[in-house]
Amino acid sequence: MEDRIYNFAAGPSMLADEVLIKIKEELFNYKGSGMSVMEMSHRSKGYLEIFENTKAGLRRLLEIPEDYEILFMHGGATGMFASIPQNLLKGKTADYVITGNFAKKAAQEAEKFGDVHIAYDGKENNYSLIPDENELNFSEDPAYIHICANNTIYGTEWKKFPKVESVPLVVDMSSDILSKPINVSDFGLIYAGAQKNMGIAGFAVAIIRKDLISETDPKVPSIMNYELSLKNDSMLNTPATYPIYVLGKVVEWLEEIGGLKEIEKRNILKAQKLYDFIDNTPFYRPHAQKESRSLMNVTFTTPDPELDAAFAKQATENGLSNLKGHRLVGGLRASIYNAMPLTGVEKLIDFMDRFAKENG
Amino acid sequence: MEDRIYNFAAGPSMLADEVLIKIKEELFNYKGSGMSVMEMSHRSKGYLEIFENTKAGLRRLLEIPEDYEILFMHGGATGMFASIPQNLLKGKTADYVITGNFAKKAAQEAEKFGDVHIAYDGKENNYSLIPDENELNFSEDPAYIHICANNTIYGTEWKKFPKVESVPLVVDMSSDILSKPINVSDFGLIYAGAQKNMGIAGFAVAIIRKDLISETDPKVPSIMNYELSLKNDSMLNTPATYPIYVLGKVVEWLEEIGGLKEIEKRNILKAQKLYDFIDNTPFYRPHAQKESRSLMNVTFTTPDPELDAAFAKQATENGLSNLKGHRLVGGLRASIYNAMPLTGVEKLIDFMDRFAKENG
Repeated sequence: MEDRIYNFAAGPSMLADEVLIKIKEELFNYKGSGMSVMEMSHRSKGYLEIFENTKAGLRRLLEIPEDYEILFMHGGATGMFASIPQNLLKGKTADYVITGNFAKKAAQEAEKFGDVHIAYDGKENNYSLIPDENELNFSEDPAYIHICANNTIYGTEWKKFPKVESVPLVVDMSSDILSKPINVSDFGLIYAGAQKNMGIAGFAVAIIRKDLISETDPKVPSIMNYELSLKNDSMLNTPATYPIYVLGKVVEWLEEIGGLKEIEKRNILKAQKLYDFIDNTPFYRPHAQKESRSLMNVTFTTPDPELDAAFAKQATENGLSNLKGHRLVGGLRASIYNAMPLTGVEKLIDFMDRFAKENG
Repeated sequence: MEDRIYNFAAGPSMLADEVLIKIKEELFNYKGSGMSVMEMSHRSKGYLEIFENTKAGLRRLLEIPEDYEILFMHGGATGMFASIPQNLLKGKTADYVITGNFAKKAAQEAEKFGDVHIAYDGKENNYSLIPDENELNFSEDPAYIHICANNTIYGTEWKKFPKVESVPLVVDMSSDILSKPINVSDFGLIYAGAQKNMGIAGFAVAIIRKDLISETDPKVPSIMNYELSLKNDSMLNTPATYPIYVLGKVVEWLEEIGGLKEIEKRNILKAQKLYDFIDNTPFYRPHAQKESRSLMNVTFTTPDPELDAAFAKQATENGLSNLKGHRLVGGLRASIYNAMPLTGVEKLIDFMDRFAKENG
């Protein structure tokens, strides 16, 4: 694969070589259609087949029950931050659990459209952990409870979601969807921007329990209206046709390698190796607390910010790119999504070892 | 180019071979970066260069003056239908000129957010023409006047826009942007979904006079807020990174062939040949009136709907695809955007000639 490097970016992020190979093969002439998927009308038979196969594959992979719908929405997760309250609040209060920057942004956006109750905010611990269930202070009768499953910036991840009985749990899985099996029935709405484990930027996937879609206020912008999206099978207007095709290729790849159980095994192995190395190397300090650690985004620091900067620079020179941490946490971050192979993590560990010895 | 066909789809639509070749070349490893553009973080130096070059190229190509900003917005033109009134109405009335289906949809969406005045509606003539300036009945002090430059479904196009003095003209150029030079200063806001002359589906381009961006109501969804988009250089959240890269390739191609004057010459030649043939072949009847005809979408019918269907089917078998007209007009439609080569139009004319002789 032509000198490809290991890209530890938090998103947009790496694609599996197998996915890129397929995309390149099909680029000029998709399966004898005489055109690129990029050029296909979203209403054409050829494209509709891609579209339906993508949805069906996603349904198989995540074992999405029949009473859930898959919607492809514009505007990424930030678009969803606005559409969720506009579709689900219905005059009630929504509870938001703030475990990081995007959880906070989701709550701030929701405040534009109704009452928001903050059930928890981890800013005192600099979002280094996922709270226990008994630390969550829910309101009396919320329309929904919003949680961010994986906090990309801070490197924390929910291992077990709170029991919320009859309240729909709305979960932003932008940075850990498809990384492991989940029980879709535990949630009212699962959503994710596509540019991490689902392919490339340009849309969001929403997996929503059918009964939650009902009579959206007609004043809601059409592209944010779940009722209209469902009625039009996500084609109220032209969807992000090519990014959706890429999602289809990612789904095919995951099915070929053995599905979400297999990818989870690989993800655990990668993360375990990296966390073990960090834990056993005093030169590095992890940001996230042990029991809250993300399988996807590993956050850590060297003894000082100048060394962090040197680390990121030298890593890049060694074919390990985008390891600089987010400015809100500083330090370093290795995003090891599904597409990052074990060899990438092993090379990172080798480099970290060398760097620690040279600078420790 | 591996048996590629001529694709007359109204959008998403053909890309120039030159553009697809470049995209394929750069797919695995963009300019030695070791990664695909699909995988690049939108915040990375490599991607920001692509992003800025795309904007700069577009600015050169359209000769966009310094007092105009380029924004890349989510949700395509339909997203813009909602964001325009939310950003520009400011409690006033907006005038909409209805010359087709998308113009109507834009007005209907605007009605959600304030007062809309319909300055003209061509439904009586089945949107077969562009009105004269004196047929437009503007309101007293509109916040803006909205026009759809090219009516994809009906095949009509504004040749000269009304003089509107100090009122900002807001123009949906989704299906004719980049097809010819325009005078950007005549407009307050020009916008277009990307999936016709600008590349692939996934975002909209907005070219807006800077002074029109001011204090957006904070209740507007963030992804629709022009003030926030400008402040964040269209990166409030992850933009449609790859579709924007494709726009960059399209812009490069247009600059290489000689810019918008050259493409206009080619577009006029293609359209002229096709309209001349239709005018000289009584078997075919054009939908749009002569002086209102679009350079981009040529609408016509055969003597009866069954023949229309047979035409579309046989054309497809002859490597000329997607010629079926939109259900609102029926008949046939040949979309001949920038990327359609003259040979495609010539082959279509040959086929039309044969079909007329066989069925006339």
